[in-house]
Amino acid sequence: MIIVIRPNTSREKVEEVIAEVEKLGYDARPIFGTNQTVVAAIGDERTHHTLESLNVLPQVEQVMRVQKRYKLVSRESHPDNSVVSVDGIEIGGAKFSMMAGPCSVENEEQLLMTAHAVKKAGATILRGGAYKPRTSPYEFQGLGKEGLRLLQVAKDETGLKIITEVLSERDVEHVAQTADILQIGARNSQNFQLLIEAAKSGKPILLKRGLSERIEEWLLAAEYILSYGNPNVLLCERGIRTFETYTRNTLDLVAVAIAKRESHLPVIVDPSQGCGRADLVRILCRGAVAMGADGLLIEVHPNPAEALSDGQQQVDFNSFDQLMQELPPILKAVGREL
Amino acid sequence: MIIVIRPNTSREKVEEVIAEVEKLGYDARPIFGTNQTVVAAIGDERTHHTLESLNVLPQVEQVMRVQKRYKLVSRESHPDNSVVSVDGIEIGGAKFSMMAGPCSVENEEQLLMTAHAVKKAGATILRGGAYKPRTSPYEFQGLGKEGLRLLQVAKDETGLKIITEVLSERDVEHVAQTADILQIGARNSQNFQLLIEAAKSGKPILLKRGLSERIEEWLLAAEYILSYGNPNVLLCERGIRTFETYTRNTLDLVAVAIAKRESHLPVIVDPSQGCGRADLVRILCRGAVAMGADGLLIEVHPNPAEALSDGQQQVDFNSFDQLMQELPPILKAVGREL
Amino acid sequence: MIIVIRPNTSREKVEEVIAEVEKLGYDARPIFGTNQTVVAAIGDERTHHTLESLNVLPQVEQVMRVQKRYKLVSRESHPDNSVVSVDGIEIGGAKFSMMAGPCSVENEEQLLMTAHAVKKAGATILRGGAYKPRTSPYEFQGLGKEGLRLLQVAKDETGLKIITEVLSERDVEHVAQTADILQIGARNSQNFQLLIEAAKSGKPILLKRGLSERIEEWLLAAEYILSYGNPNVLLCERGIRTFETYTRNTLDLVAVAIAKRESHLPVIVDPSQGCGRADLVRILCRGAVAMGADGLLIEVHPNPAEALSDGQQQVDFNSFDQLMQELPPILKAVGREL
Amino acid sequence: MIIVIRPNTSREKVEEVIAEVEKLGYDARPIFGTNQTVVAAIGDERTHHTLESLNVLPQVEQVMRVQKRYKLVSRESHPDNSVVSVDGIEIGGAKFSMMAGPCSVENEEQLLMTAHAVKKAGATILRGGAYKPRTSPYEFQGLGKEGLRLLQVAKDETGLKIITEVLSERDVEHVAQTADILQIGARNSQNFQLLIEAAKSGKPILLKRGLSERIEEWLLAAEYILSYGNPNVLLCERGIRTFETYTRNTLDLVAVAIAKRESHLPVIVDPSQGCGRADLVRILCRGAVAMGADGLLIEVHPNPAEALSDGQQQVDFNSFDQLMQELPPILKAVGREL
Repeated sequence: MIIVIRPNTSREKVEEVIAEVEKLGYDARPIFGTNQTVVAAIGDERTHHTLESLNVLPQVEQVMRVQKRYKLVSRESHPDNSVVSVDGIEIGGAKFSMMAGPCSVENEEQLLMTAHAVKKAGATILRGGAYKPRTSPYEFQGLGKEGLRLLQVAKDETGLKIITEVLSERDVEHVAQTADILQIGARNSQNFQLLIEAAKSGKPILLKRGLSERIEEWLLAAEYILSYGNPNVLLCERGIRTFETYTRNTLDLVAVAIAKRESHLPVIVDPSQGCGRADLVRILCRGAVAMGADGLLIEVHPNPAEALSDGQQQVDFNSFDQLMQELPPILKAVGREL
Repeated sequence: MIIVIRPNTSREKVEEVIAEVEKLGYDARPIFGTNQTVVAAIGDERTHHTLESLNVLPQVEQVMRVQKRYKLVSRESHPDNSVVSVDGIEIGGAKFSMMAGPCSVENEEQLLMTAHAVKKAGATILRGGAYKPRTSPYEFQGLGKEGLRLLQVAKDETGLKIITEVLSERDVEHVAQTADILQIGARNSQNFQLLIEAAKSGKPILLKRGLSERIEEWLLAAEYILSYGNPNVLLCERGIRTFETYTRNTLDLVAVAIAKRESHLPVIVDPSQGCGRADLVRILCRGAVAMGADGLLIEVHPNPAEALSDGQQQVDFNSFDQLMQELPPILKAVGREL
Repeated sequence: MIIVIRPNTSREKVEEVIAEVEKLGYDARPIFGTNQTVVAAIGDERTHHTLESLNVLPQVEQVMRVQKRYKLVSRESHPDNSVVSVDGIEIGGAKFSMMAGPCSVENEEQLLMTAHAVKKAGATILRGGAYKPRTSPYEFQGLGKEGLRLLQVAKDETGLKIITEVLSERDVEHVAQTADILQIGARNSQNFQLLIEAAKSGKPILLKRGLSERIEEWLLAAEYILSYGNPNVLLCERGIRTFETYTRNTLDLVAVAIAKRESHLPVIVDPSQGCGRADLVRILCRGAVAMGADGLLIEVHPNPAEALSDGQQQVDFNSFDQLMQELPPILKAVGREL
Repeated sequence: MIIVIRPNTSREKVEEVIAEVEKLGYDARPIFGTNQTVVAAIGDERTHHTLESLNVLPQVEQVMRVQKRYKLVSRESHPDNSVVSVDGIEIGGAKFSMMAGPCSVENEEQLLMTAHAVKKAGATILRGGAYKPRTSPYEFQGLGKEGLRLLQVAKDETGLKIITEVLSERDVEHVAQTADILQIGARNSQNFQLLIEAAKSGKPILLKRGLSERIEEWLLAAEYILSYGNPNVLLCERGIRTFETYTRNTLDLVAVAIAKRESHLPVIVDPSQGCGRADLVRILCRGAVAMGADGLLIEVHPNPAEALSDGQQQVDFNSFDQLMQELPPILKAVGREL
């Protein structure tokens, strides 16, 4: 770390900082500049006491980290792309992954119709929420275990793999019986206890970026999962909160490129949550592909206008078909295929 | 709700919207304006299907809610201020509440020294983290049950009430044995399963606002707790995430005034997390008092420079004493007292 | 507009609102709902007094606009794409536009080398700042008129068209003698006096989106230019300010798709300002193309490490060449060409 | 500056960085750490070429500034509070300043009624917009020179000093004939040409913070004015743009405390723009006083519901009177007086 000392600090006060730095286990190297002194603290920042606490000393102006805080998820520790296998389907390799299905599992007919439709169009993984985190307690909270049972029916009937959200540590075990991928939602992106419990299941985990999570924090949340022994993490960009009001969120497509550069993990894009508007989903998918995403997670519903949750961002079967027809040329242009 | 129809939409297409609105259980009242038609949907928005899904219809330009989404937490449902009793100490009444103590419980000496110091200065509630949600898995995660044991020792020795964070549904029961107030942190502000479990304990709950949680969402999270039968909620403003980089967060003091206006619940301010800088804590406390806060939650440490977590935002005993001396005149100016 | 009345308001107080609405020139239509009354105010919102001021009445809960605030820039007023002609080069049609050149004009050699290099690679418009808006008064402010003279030299020698920023109303006339496109920077995105003066020149204007400008506000700024009789506006997305710190700005590629949908004007993307990192420029260009942009504005410098301004975001000639080779397949996939 | 070199960089590549640092005029001091090397560049960052451009070198991970970028506005260069004299009225000293008046000058009766009312209640400076920067070209743009004439009438009749906004470099001279303080609005906060022109007038300048301007950038904008020889700057916090939608802006009261700490300039708070809601103005004023503001700028109108601009945020005479009665005890508590 670099500790910046305020201008006009006495030599004695600098020595005080040096002593504190060394007490906390680092080697201290002061550099006396033209206007200000800085103290370089030598030592591994990830295994030592942080020095940010030195900001409380009146002669310290700021403390700057030098090292990155994540390790296992970083490109440096694993230069090649990771490929995550979901019961035989590979994510992060040359083939692009399509995950699609309704926001919420509502009933058997709705789910099966959608499963067949997305499979026919080319999806290999079925999404569908059984447990729904809703902003208001008065909104539809999902079918729970009955929803999981229906997902199992759809899986048995279509052979599609299943991705579904888990909201509670207590649910991890039984959700993992049906799910091939455990989804951690944006609101739980830093619910570390849930991350740890999900990690222990050994299942692939799709980790959504929090609403206002910096990329560094997102990668550190993934680092929790890897550090608990589960390397099968899919990062998922799903829109961040900004000042813009035209869309529900601002899909941060640049974060896809950055996550691919900083980390070896596959990156999935959720354009439905990402903007909250069905009419923008297809164009966002194009952008996601061009920016290097490894897959898409899309909300599809037989009749979005009457959906029990987030109808405004779900596309109908027809739209999904069109999407699946327009993606291949762009995929090809960036060296990928469906 | 109000459904705004796009300009130049045919009468037939408006009828389609009206039919859908009525199908979803509302009375529809079209109003034909100079340039555009709107359809007013009459019915209780909190008990009916949302109409936001109608945004998927091409002739719909936007859907606007009319009603507020929260009920039990609203001033309308409870015009007087709620006073929450914490084992005999009242929060939200004429007396202002001081909660203080270390960010993390580190060891017995640190905790007891701090407990005695803050009690002597006038605090009545001791804070201290046993379970710590940390951005990186490599950072100090708290002492866990040993931390709770030490908090119990401090409680027994000083008579201070205890507030401490709970991170996991599974911990609610045993944390509630020591804690007089369960703290839900910003990262778990929309971890609804944890909110529900904490609600069921019957204990007072301090609910921190999420990093980018709108005030409406914060109140809806509180609504979860009230709707599960626990009215003892303290709202806590602790800084929001903005573009500003001078401080770690931007303490939103205006939100204090708004929460007091919209809701009957007491509002607490956490200036330590709120800006992440010990040197600003005292001035932020003044502002919080002037803006109508009912109490403060302050991080105090015997030696912040060597704290195991967030030393940069913890004040020392001397600073805390000064704070306790400068608040009374401002409290008095706004009709409160310590 | 829709005026939402607070719950439990007396009939008399509703009448007061109705009277005020009619006094301000609208027809008022009250709708008495299950829980709340709303008053629909009928009249053209763009030519009448705004009713937002009615928020000051205690019985009014909120006032909601129905109409869009922009007119000339909207798709509704001009369903086809506008094509802007820059001295014979068309922007917004089938051909994609490449504008490239140094952040600042530094000297003749630097500018001419760059002009020749970008021309050879396929650019048709040369960018280069003569007047530079710099955050600090101690930073390089541009060469001013000498910079314009050098741009004219480059134009004469290469035949490239020129785009350059204008900072001051007083400079519009002489900048317009050399510039084929006047650039209005992000900091001046709502400097309406400058917009009006630039509009009067009749030159095409590239209007950058402000750092925290909502899309609606950006379009309204363009509306100023059109309403002063100049239809030749290019919208330019150049990154917005968010909480993310990995990049200087967050390039909002979704805004490209939205601007194309809401407006008929061409949309250009500036990936250099957009993220502030040269190593991300190429991938951002891919995303911009896929999202429907009509052109790119790229900073290119012979030796970025020694650039007098923003070296960190300028690509070198080699990078620019590679970019120009990798874009055509993506352009083709979305039906465009260089 | 500190240049952080990527892990595992060869000694030769580090030498390359050192050579570049020295070429750009700094002394380079490499420090070889446990995991990474950093190069400290010694030299005054404000007078040398920035090294941020070195980010383009592939072996460079990041470049960190050490020094603050502002000088004349900093506390270090001027440890005492600056007091700005506005034609005899001192701002920034023991006396707190009240500036009040309508958002826009609408007509003589409206302005004079308001001037007399605010004077009677205790204000010493009259605000009123003659030139109005409006988001839409279809909104009321102010009375222009006729507005200035009316402000002069009000000044002559009441003896109040005048603060009014200037939007254009070309208007500075004639606005300065009537205005005692030139106001630079949020949209022009980084319109450096306007700042320079206003600086040259020698008049006190109230500089509003931009909508998403970091405190550092705000102070650097003030540095422009001081560096052009005009030390009479009042900083004005007026709300920043965040994700919150309850209010128009989020008034950043913490920025008041920070600006007072970093700079010697007086700080004024505008609670009307700051939240855009008349009903919150009084409580925000309390907070502003407690946080150390030196004055307030408040919008007051005889009949806000019918105001030609921003009626929703203007208070009426009665509200203003109440405000002036409730502030003194808080002022006294923080050692100030009206």
